[in-house]
Amino acid sequence: MPEFIEVPRGLDRVIVADTEIGDVRGEEGFYHYRQYDAVELARRCSFEQVWHLMIHGALPTAEQLADFKAAVAPYRPLTAELLDLLPHLNGSSPLDGLRTALSAACAARPMRPVLDIDDETRRDDALFACAVTPAILCGMWRLSQGQEPLQPREDLGYAANYLYMMTGEVPNEELARAIEQYMILTIDHGFNASTFTARVIASTGADLGAALVGAVGALSGPLHGGAPSRALDALDAIGSVDNIDSWIRTELEAGRRIMGFGHAVYKTDDPRSVHLRDVATDFDGELVEFAKTVERRVVEILAEVKPGRKLYTNVEFFAGVVMELAGVPRQMFTPTFTSSRVVGWSANILEQAHDSKIIRPRARYIGPPPPQPVEIPEE
Amino acid sequence: MPEFIEVPRGLDRVIVADTEIGDVRGEEGFYHYRQYDAVELARRCSFEQVWHLMIHGALPTAEQLADFKAAVAPYRPLTAELLDLLPHLNGSSPLDGLRTALSAACAARPMRPVLDIDDETRRDDALFACAVTPAILCGMWRLSQGQEPLQPREDLGYAANYLYMMTGEVPNEELARAIEQYMILTIDHGFNASTFTARVIASTGADLGAALVGAVGALSGPLHGGAPSRALDALDAIGSVDNIDSWIRTELEAGRRIMGFGHAVYKTDDPRSVHLRDVATDFDGELVEFAKTVERRVVEILAEVKPGRKLYTNVEFFAGVVMELAGVPRQMFTPTFTSSRVVGWSANILEQAHDSKIIRPRARYIGPPPPQPVEIPEE
Repeated sequence: MPEFIEVPRGLDRVIVADTEIGDVRGEEGFYHYRQYDAVELARRCSFEQVWHLMIHGALPTAEQLADFKAAVAPYRPLTAELLDLLPHLNGSSPLDGLRTALSAACAARPMRPVLDIDDETRRDDALFACAVTPAILCGMWRLSQGQEPLQPREDLGYAANYLYMMTGEVPNEELARAIEQYMILTIDHGFNASTFTARVIASTGADLGAALVGAVGALSGPLHGGAPSRALDALDAIGSVDNIDSWIRTELEAGRRIMGFGHAVYKTDDPRSVHLRDVATDFDGELVEFAKTVERRVVEILAEVKPGRKLYTNVEFFAGVVMELAGVPRQMFTPTFTSSRVVGWSANILEQAHDSKIIRPRARYIGPPPPQPVEIPEE
Repeated sequence: MPEFIEVPRGLDRVIVADTEIGDVRGEEGFYHYRQYDAVELARRCSFEQVWHLMIHGALPTAEQLADFKAAVAPYRPLTAELLDLLPHLNGSSPLDGLRTALSAACAARPMRPVLDIDDETRRDDALFACAVTPAILCGMWRLSQGQEPLQPREDLGYAANYLYMMTGEVPNEELARAIEQYMILTIDHGFNASTFTARVIASTGADLGAALVGAVGALSGPLHGGAPSRALDALDAIGSVDNIDSWIRTELEAGRRIMGFGHAVYKTDDPRSVHLRDVATDFDGELVEFAKTVERRVVEILAEVKPGRKLYTNVEFFAGVVMELAGVPRQMFTPTFTSSRVVGWSANILEQAHDSKIIRPRARYIGPPPPQPVEIPEE
């Protein structure tokens, strides 16, 4: 009989599966989707091109891309059922609203267990769920602001439509392109907690919607995607260049983490942060210069105060700056992240569906030894 | 730098955490909740007593039990929001409807991240979510049958209320007690896929609702809780004693699994099956005798055809018989399982909330080596 295997808490550095979707090389500051540098994809491609890459495994030809966009288009608007449902969820945050509404929309389709259907049907489910996600998130946001949900415009791509459905205004091309690059950069990132959640659920053979809804819940956690606006809140708290050093040292002395710095996997510059700093720099303004100054001082002071810890800027820091520049309200930072990550979750679910083995680990029982007699205490 | 650790696919026999909630000893055919034999608890206790044990860590005194019931009572009825929402989900299965409605109900409460609240607040969230689950499941069922959802009766316990809200009739005590025992037996069972899902989500610090909604999705998978009515469907297909042997051999020759037999962890009799056979036997009838005859022949033929595989009856087989006897429609078998397992998930989420480490494993990339130049294919 095989022995039990003990692994570190949190499954740090525990390899649980093979994947062809991508990888994160934390020591090198490099990550990739399929065989392509993810940053290069962000620089060179549209969101739809990378979406096709993730779901179909290859970048599309012009004709394939046109077909892909045509396949996605009917899935982008809020369905009649969602238009009816969303106002009933007003009061939920946009992310919690997505959890509920995506659950309802996938059940209404209805989706069948990934185990019971072929690749083409699974991919079609994935296109539906990803395509409708921005409309749900933006619809929930607008309802929370006392506005009606908006449907997508046929002439706009994924990222521009997202901004349009949120604000009601067609964004200028540079800002839409900045958000599109942010979205491409955040489609996938190894076996993070939400992606792993999606794969554990898919391993039971459940439908794609069940797996995505679980992943949305995982992303809502403060240790995961729960608060990317915190770095920007910190910039607000610092306020001016004069306060930078004293603010940082006060936070560190109080034992608080500096939000936007340090990452579980990266032990050098986070390549997403490096690229988003470049994207932000194109917009040349006070906020960007201030953020760069704060970044430089935080990294210097962290190296001095916590030597050897290798704490660098993570994606949260300049992501916040780029979203602020593009007019994304802070409550919509995590939803914006969700609207791209849903594509990475879907690619992972499609891959997991090819493995018929359920994910079912063990725990070590450390309580009092059983069986004790069942006795109802008297007082 | 620590090395990477490779583990078997599906995390078989991989110990990922310590727990005080319970354990499954597959070789012995024994499982326990806290320090008590789970079967003994089913024999001796009410569902509410075991629920208290799971959430508070100890069996309650009479006074504690009264307080516990008083705390749970206001959470059992469908809220005004749920009464409003459920008809909008008609068309969803009861389980998918629970996924959606529990998500909405937890968001409306609202629940806060488990990381940001204390044990008492977390327990209160857990009582709410568990207490309202039967009303949602039964409400969805009744809507699917063209009937109005029913609210719980104050004079009935968890299991009897479940049957009442489903059928509209107060069940007789023996049948309610049979279902109560089934429910106690299925509250928890190690780090199965849905429980592990709940813990991965909770490890991000997300709220209890997010973790439960993910677990519901995992339980909907056919490899997990997806189809406990299959064993009963097999009894129907066999039809009569004369057909038993030929039916079993035909199934095995066609390479199909016999539903209700074999378990990932148990390599001997499943203690849940053994006890539910006893429970069923008290009702003494044709179905029970037929099921016992089929069971004996399946186990004998499996031992002959698949020697050394140690395939015994699992919980699904006599659970189906007991639910059939109690008048639970087959579409409600998995929901009935869910209405008890939600307590086990909650206990696991409360325990996971004490560990501040996020669960984030790794994968091995096996695709073409990156980075390849990003080139858009021409055709």
